[in-house]
Amino acid sequence: MRDVSIIGIGQTDVGEHWERSLRDLAVDATIAVLKDSHVERVDALYVGNMLSGELTAQEHLGTLVADWGGLGGAEAFKVEAADASGAAAVRLAYLAVASGVHEFVIACGVEKTTDADAETTNAAWSYGTDAEYEGNQGVTMPSMAGLLMRRYLHEFGVPREDFAPFPVIAHANGANNSHAMYRSPISADVYSRAGMVADPICMFDAAPMCDGAAAVLLCPSEMAMRLNAKPVRIRASAAATDRLAVHSRTDPLFLRASYLSAQRAYLQAGVGPSEMDLFEVHDAFSILAALSLEACGFAERGKATVLAREGAFNLDGRTPTSKRGYGVPICTMGGLKARGHPIGASGVYQVVEVVQQLRGEAGANQVEAHLGMAQSLGGTGATAITHILEG
Amino acid sequence: MRDVSIIGIGQTDVGEHWERSLRDLAVDATIAVLKDSHVERVDALYVGNMLSGELTAQEHLGTLVADWGGLGGAEAFKVEAADASGAAAVRLAYLAVASGVHEFVIACGVEKTTDADAETTNAAWSYGTDAEYEGNQGVTMPSMAGLLMRRYLHEFGVPREDFAPFPVIAHANGANNSHAMYRSPISADVYSRAGMVADPICMFDAAPMCDGAAAVLLCPSEMAMRLNAKPVRIRASAAATDRLAVHSRTDPLFLRASYLSAQRAYLQAGVGPSEMDLFEVHDAFSILAALSLEACGFAERGKATVLAREGAFNLDGRTPTSKRGYGVPICTMGGLKARGHPIGASGVYQVVEVVQQLRGEAGANQVEAHLGMAQSLGGTGATAITHILEG
Repeated sequence: MRDVSIIGIGQTDVGEHWERSLRDLAVDATIAVLKDSHVERVDALYVGNMLSGELTAQEHLGTLVADWGGLGGAEAFKVEAADASGAAAVRLAYLAVASGVHEFVIACGVEKTTDADAETTNAAWSYGTDAEYEGNQGVTMPSMAGLLMRRYLHEFGVPREDFAPFPVIAHANGANNSHAMYRSPISADVYSRAGMVADPICMFDAAPMCDGAAAVLLCPSEMAMRLNAKPVRIRASAAATDRLAVHSRTDPLFLRASYLSAQRAYLQAGVGPSEMDLFEVHDAFSILAALSLEACGFAERGKATVLAREGAFNLDGRTPTSKRGYGVPICTMGGLKARGHPIGASGVYQVVEVVQQLRGEAGANQVEAHLGMAQSLGGTGATAITHILEG
Repeated sequence: MRDVSIIGIGQTDVGEHWERSLRDLAVDATIAVLKDSHVERVDALYVGNMLSGELTAQEHLGTLVADWGGLGGAEAFKVEAADASGAAAVRLAYLAVASGVHEFVIACGVEKTTDADAETTNAAWSYGTDAEYEGNQGVTMPSMAGLLMRRYLHEFGVPREDFAPFPVIAHANGANNSHAMYRSPISADVYSRAGMVADPICMFDAAPMCDGAAAVLLCPSEMAMRLNAKPVRIRASAAATDRLAVHSRTDPLFLRASYLSAQRAYLQAGVGPSEMDLFEVHDAFSILAALSLEACGFAERGKATVLAREGAFNLDGRTPTSKRGYGVPICTMGGLKARGHPIGASGVYQVVEVVQQLRGEAGANQVEAHLGMAQSLGGTGATAITHILEG
């Protein structure tokens, strides 16, 4: 298996791009990553996207982006794993380079939600749940997350307000990211007064659906050294799945896919959570961030909110006083909550942001980082894809 | 790069499965491939599918099938490349095993079109064209194929009736395939009298949209020898793309992706078209079969119908009298036309059928085969994925 590195990143601003199409966004990110990589030949392009068919009447998206991105003839597919589609594209690019089949491969994530009305988009997002047993019964992603959060509050005796640190951290960090959708800090007080989306999920517990595209370019590490002054090594790439429907899971508060995927990544990299300098966590909902932090070993079960209140997940976090886990800076560029959650693109944005940190290009949000981790979840956590990167 | 082999195949009957769901079909094929492989541990599952979201409100399909197929925890994604989605899943499984990352990987292709009415399905199928410039203008797949065929008739001075051998061969072979949707032979006379779908495309020039699922199980060749008496080696796996919209192509009658993908496969395998014992060609429309045969080197440009009339593509074909190319048995189990075209599953069916031939399990349609090739096209040929297998 060849060692693989990332030598380029590209991203569009995240937001509501009323005047840009699905194609425009993906091509912008592709051109940006080519420019950043100084690479002209690309062997393959894998596009992570969840809803191009439902919202834009466009499938065959890999080939569309390869065509309009000027990659004439390159291998190209679309890969889908609900919200984890972008991370799946990175995973696939990793496999293609590690195998020795390709040298230069782009993983691009893109989502264009504003081509459809909010009701259509919200319904389509629920296609990431089990259609027959969940989605078709009227379930939405916020309502499923609401059930999980309600159970968490009950099981661990945590007040709702204790989830405030997750969006507070995300918005504080997003304020310094020029690509972020929301750039205003919020306070815990604002959180506690926010309107409900799906009780107990309030407006600040739910990441916004929006538009955006991001891309990374991978090549063999031995070539990366020669091509780029700051290549970032992929120390681990791992994916895992759980039962799709929440009601099928023995313990709905244990994200088994998140756990398995992190364990596989730790094993491959030969490191553990205590050695991680930052963690781009999947905070599509605050409850998913808490459950992922627990499943990945950054907090003991039921203690993620305790650690959060102690500041263990702030940019300068890491050593919680309570010793309920390791703590780690999260959502360093705003996370899904403040940077925005362009569904099938988010997994690539996370990897781009870890690269920014490891290259020392994170501006006001820079953490001292040697090892960074990104984990993207699909749906209510039935898919988890983890990457550990080294700068 | 590890050498990769196929040690198991599975397939459902192709047809209109009114009482089986998307999930049922995919799980049936997954269970069948596990049974055929005698393998219990599976590391990853890649599902090729084009329209599960549009027609069944179900995305996150990889995880659904891994869950219900009993593959607890395995890596799983859906991969989409329009009609070539199934072949893309095989390609992805190949990359995962070749890389050394995984040992046992299933590629499953599934499509369930009868969950929606024919108009919806036909419109959704056109999402494989360029949405903004073709699909949204009212184009359908048959109408695009009609334009290509009209141009072919004009350019090469061929009468429409000369395309008859393609469906005649497919139906003759499908008659002996118990999994095929259509099992009645047709005559050239019936072809010439058939009603038009999109002039000059008649009813027998267009493969039927339908339901079905097929799967193959891949592992390293060195393990395959020990596990299976008849492993089938993947001598080559290659993908390529063309401009998505037909109007962007310099020569619409030259399928550049088909050509590039075949050339890459020939290079990897170290063989050429003259050495191929059978070719599962993408006959979604007769015109696409003719253009692929020409692009892959089995017939000179403009001569595919001439060779077809001489019998060069029959089961006992191979050595055309006119020397206008090599000829090769095609659609040996009925092709997309008679076996049926469950869109995102067809690419896997093709590979399953090549394996049947190489194992000597093709029954009445058995050809003497050592090397077999399958090529799947996406949309109007903008994606092409080629596999060369050795028995």
